[in-house]
Amino acid sequence: MVTFQKTEGLLAAPFTPFHEDGSLNLSLIPTLVDKLVADGLSGAFICGSNGEGPNMTTQERKTVAETFVKASAGRLPIWVHVGHSSIRESQELMRHAYAIGADAASSVAAFYFKPSSVQNLVDSMAEIASAEPRMPFYYYHIPVLTGIGLDMVEFLRLSETQIPNLRGIKYTANTLWEYQTCLRYQNGRYDVLFGYDEMLLPALSLGAQAAIGSTYNFAAPLYLEVQRHYVAGNQEEARTCMAHLVDMVRAFVKYPPIPAQKAIMHMLGYDVGPCRLPLTKLTSTQYDQLYTELDTIGFWERLQAVSGNQAVNLPA
Amino acid sequence: MVTFQKTEGLLAAPFTPFHEDGSLNLSLIPTLVDKLVADGLSGAFICGSNGEGPNMTTQERKTVAETFVKASAGRLPIWVHVGHSSIRESQELMRHAYAIGADAASSVAAFYFKPSSVQNLVDSMAEIASAEPRMPFYYYHIPVLTGIGLDMVEFLRLSETQIPNLRGIKYTANTLWEYQTCLRYQNGRYDVLFGYDEMLLPALSLGAQAAIGSTYNFAAPLYLEVQRHYVAGNQEEARTCMAHLVDMVRAFVKYPPIPAQKAIMHMLGYDVGPCRLPLTKLTSTQYDQLYTELDTIGFWERLQAVSGNQAVNLPA
Amino acid sequence: MVTFQKTEGLLAAPFTPFHEDGSLNLSLIPTLVDKLVADGLSGAFICGSNGEGPNMTTQERKTVAETFVKASAGRLPIWVHVGHSSIRESQELMRHAYAIGADAASSVAAFYFKPSSVQNLVDSMAEIASAEPRMPFYYYHIPVLTGIGLDMVEFLRLSETQIPNLRGIKYTANTLWEYQTCLRYQNGRYDVLFGYDEMLLPALSLGAQAAIGSTYNFAAPLYLEVQRHYVAGNQEEARTCMAHLVDMVRAFVKYPPIPAQKAIMHMLGYDVGPCRLPLTKLTSTQYDQLYTELDTIGFWERLQAVSGNQAVNLPA
Amino acid sequence: MVTFQKTEGLLAAPFTPFHEDGSLNLSLIPTLVDKLVADGLSGAFICGSNGEGPNMTTQERKTVAETFVKASAGRLPIWVHVGHSSIRESQELMRHAYAIGADAASSVAAFYFKPSSVQNLVDSMAEIASAEPRMPFYYYHIPVLTGIGLDMVEFLRLSETQIPNLRGIKYTANTLWEYQTCLRYQNGRYDVLFGYDEMLLPALSLGAQAAIGSTYNFAAPLYLEVQRHYVAGNQEEARTCMAHLVDMVRAFVKYPPIPAQKAIMHMLGYDVGPCRLPLTKLTSTQYDQLYTELDTIGFWERLQAVSGNQAVNLPA
Repeated sequence: MVTFQKTEGLLAAPFTPFHEDGSLNLSLIPTLVDKLVADGLSGAFICGSNGEGPNMTTQERKTVAETFVKASAGRLPIWVHVGHSSIRESQELMRHAYAIGADAASSVAAFYFKPSSVQNLVDSMAEIASAEPRMPFYYYHIPVLTGIGLDMVEFLRLSETQIPNLRGIKYTANTLWEYQTCLRYQNGRYDVLFGYDEMLLPALSLGAQAAIGSTYNFAAPLYLEVQRHYVAGNQEEARTCMAHLVDMVRAFVKYPPIPAQKAIMHMLGYDVGPCRLPLTKLTSTQYDQLYTELDTIGFWERLQAVSGNQAVNLPA
Repeated sequence: MVTFQKTEGLLAAPFTPFHEDGSLNLSLIPTLVDKLVADGLSGAFICGSNGEGPNMTTQERKTVAETFVKASAGRLPIWVHVGHSSIRESQELMRHAYAIGADAASSVAAFYFKPSSVQNLVDSMAEIASAEPRMPFYYYHIPVLTGIGLDMVEFLRLSETQIPNLRGIKYTANTLWEYQTCLRYQNGRYDVLFGYDEMLLPALSLGAQAAIGSTYNFAAPLYLEVQRHYVAGNQEEARTCMAHLVDMVRAFVKYPPIPAQKAIMHMLGYDVGPCRLPLTKLTSTQYDQLYTELDTIGFWERLQAVSGNQAVNLPA
Repeated sequence: MVTFQKTEGLLAAPFTPFHEDGSLNLSLIPTLVDKLVADGLSGAFICGSNGEGPNMTTQERKTVAETFVKASAGRLPIWVHVGHSSIRESQELMRHAYAIGADAASSVAAFYFKPSSVQNLVDSMAEIASAEPRMPFYYYHIPVLTGIGLDMVEFLRLSETQIPNLRGIKYTANTLWEYQTCLRYQNGRYDVLFGYDEMLLPALSLGAQAAIGSTYNFAAPLYLEVQRHYVAGNQEEARTCMAHLVDMVRAFVKYPPIPAQKAIMHMLGYDVGPCRLPLTKLTSTQYDQLYTELDTIGFWERLQAVSGNQAVNLPA
Repeated sequence: MVTFQKTEGLLAAPFTPFHEDGSLNLSLIPTLVDKLVADGLSGAFICGSNGEGPNMTTQERKTVAETFVKASAGRLPIWVHVGHSSIRESQELMRHAYAIGADAASSVAAFYFKPSSVQNLVDSMAEIASAEPRMPFYYYHIPVLTGIGLDMVEFLRLSETQIPNLRGIKYTANTLWEYQTCLRYQNGRYDVLFGYDEMLLPALSLGAQAAIGSTYNFAAPLYLEVQRHYVAGNQEEARTCMAHLVDMVRAFVKYPPIPAQKAIMHMLGYDVGPCRLPLTKLTSTQYDQLYTELDTIGFWERLQAVSGNQAVNLPA
């Protein structure tokens, strides 16, 4: 039985803006929020992988969360990633997220010592989620970064009684058949948001209602077009639009993906700054190559076209 | 420019029948071929992973290939897997497959010493394919077994001039976005057959026209139903049918998958016998559990229903 | 040119004592320090893997460090592990360790986002080490936990100018040939402490002068005996003593190693309490099995024998 | 109880000589055998990884084995690697090796489908070994190539009754503590030959009596010097000699190791030819760089020095 409003549409996972010296650039956050609202996003998932949450101090994570919640002013649901190698720190972030009025919290599996079984993962997530039982909680499944690829259907089964505030999973894995089973688990009891942008259409074909991703920061209108075509039954159009987006992803994943996408944000006029070590900024040669390749495949043009009258900061 | 008829529909990857002592049970092969023809398959991919090709001697592989080609008598295209740790053995199998009138050949990457780059993989496949330039050749991409997960788009690009008889890829990986790019490469120049049965619907959403798999040996009519619903634009029905098949796969992958599927064949009246070491037969307890679970999820019933008037050997 | 006194002997990596509810049990720390002093240890490496540093909050790590430094009162060098997914937190821990009078600091590679090259690793470590240039710094190389197995000889080469306060490496990997090259790098310029207790004798054969490990918390006298035999040229005796210790390690690594070693500490009368999730305590059945197996292989007896007149808390 | 003469000293794993077109160059084999005899080797382990056994056809492997046995004429024990993805082919190679008078046979784990447990591995090896119960059999443990890293102590325990002709293990892994336990298993019942040349000294410190390796093809006299120093208790000299050999290994492992070592053989006047795909020959630039680097670290000079009056084909 679903007891809450399930999520629909796209949530962006914003890049945390830094100054050149690596300090937080909080002043850019309202602009980023305005853009996401204008682009039709359904939420922002902050301080996760793309937001470099694990690269920030606990205090910085709180400050970023507060700034996003304030900038949103209710216009955009704010989901706060609270994952940390220390569950005690996660609990603190969980309580803080609720206290400041964020809409949901989410956590990856512990990533220094790794969960040894599904039950152990559930125990760990329960310890975090129970720190604030009033806060909707989502497990963030991302095996490629955490090295934890446990069975998510079993995770849902074991969480039922143990994590009352579990709302679902941010599912960032390409095991789509397991994703489908999670989606349909107990008649769709859980919100299972898909996390691989470049496989959005296949996820839609299985019934995905919502997705969270990094490229939705700058290309959401093009993904929403895929979704419109899919819903309208225009299979070939959906496929073609999706293929263009895959081309865009292929263009930037030649480079480290977070720095490359921060570069794309910069090309579009949003100076989100460098990354923190061990992530490093693209070189200017890489930046120029990436710009050119995106131009060659017509990405800038398509982005302008789909945005209609809305002002798009296109690269010169 | 596509210069050949592309494959459509489903190809099964038959299990090689063995006697209890591990010797070949060639006499069952005509029965298996008849079943695949009756089930509407578009071909059989023999001596691959499911056919335990790497568990057989070169001579046995030749004998099995001859028996399939003869049993088919032109009713069912026979694709012969020729992959081997030794390219010289692969070349011999390639020439043999052509000589006996098989329809296509395919090879995995070398799996003892592993290709170190896409170019090295192309060089290796070119050496095999060139042993019989008249034979259509497909690269068999299956990272989970070979440990080789190189970029398939780059593979196609480098193969263009170097492997004139390359027809495409048997793509057994869940990186669907790369699969989509391969499908659309040069306006669909290559035949890119999808290899993860449990993700057929997502692959169809991207334009897949053909697939090769193990469960098509015994459940092809149910997958063809998914395809029919998809083509007709019945998104929800396609999804529901697909979900049932995913349940079926989840039921048997608790066990080693090839032995478990040989057990399912046995339940359906086809005594394909044990596997060869290091693969081992299910215990009788596992066999009974698997039977019961497939019954519980309604698999036998659905299989009968979809098969209509055709005689189905259902378990008692 | 070596400009500092290199480390000799064994450093223990203490287990952080927790109460049953998971809170810090600081009151036990002086007892643990006294034991290490009595056992002839050359230092304590705290808040690392065995100390569950990544399971603690930054504040807790500071408190534990302060307690160790105070308890030591100069009798036992205290090395503080400052590794964290966030380099900014590591910097804070680095400055704190120096401020409280700890003897050295050490850090693992970032473990959420992973260094992409040796240079990137050096850049990351330099950012940490430079936060307090007066503090001796050691890179903590432990590929099995961090997934980072970069070339350590190259690391030393690139660090020379970039990390002036680099003193060496805590080398926890079984690539002994690379270890040997690091030991001899620039005539032994760096302190390269070996981290696999169960391979101490092989490391000694290559010239190891110091080691850091978890089993040195409770079995140091037996390892010191191995070292004495080795130095005296008693090859067979060294080997036999080492073999007994390997048997001991084999006994407990059937279980999760940190919880199992906390259980051994408890058997010896030191109630270091449970672990924090995702690590879990041994069950009482596992505890009893472990006790019995250690007894069967004569571990308790040997530990008593080697300790001579010193009071040893042996299990009843 | 040991019922056979255990192996002592070094066995080389010869490179199979090929002509430029990739065909076997059998005529060079007697020369290679003469060199190994002159260098004081205790045997040759043929058709393994370094011999590119998996790159050859079954017929070629038989021919190479026959040529080595004949060239040896009893002067050098010949061990034949019979590992293959197909156990039936391994059995054929096992029977052949015995029939031609080879001294021992050995096999890696199946490497397409992988053993799922120690028992499964033992079952697989038993099926091979039982094909010729009169032939001494060794399991070839090389996780880095096969991906199979199962517990070797448990392997010995389960093999005791199941593989009567098991003589031991070719142990190519850097888990020296497990190696030590295998060495001492049942008072040294089994022959456990060490397979990482660059860690020979550490293995000696644990009691290793014999080793098999690729660099023993061209640098055996230098390794025998390490052993002499170790046996004589000259720890520092043993270490220094070992360090020089590690430098040599570090010089060539920048390149693909088998091609690089074939290049070294060529530098020394033994034209063992190219490798077979997917292995590729060094480029001439790489060849020259390797030659120069070996010269820079004094390898050629040391090799000449240790060989005394024996004629050494040193590069010009």
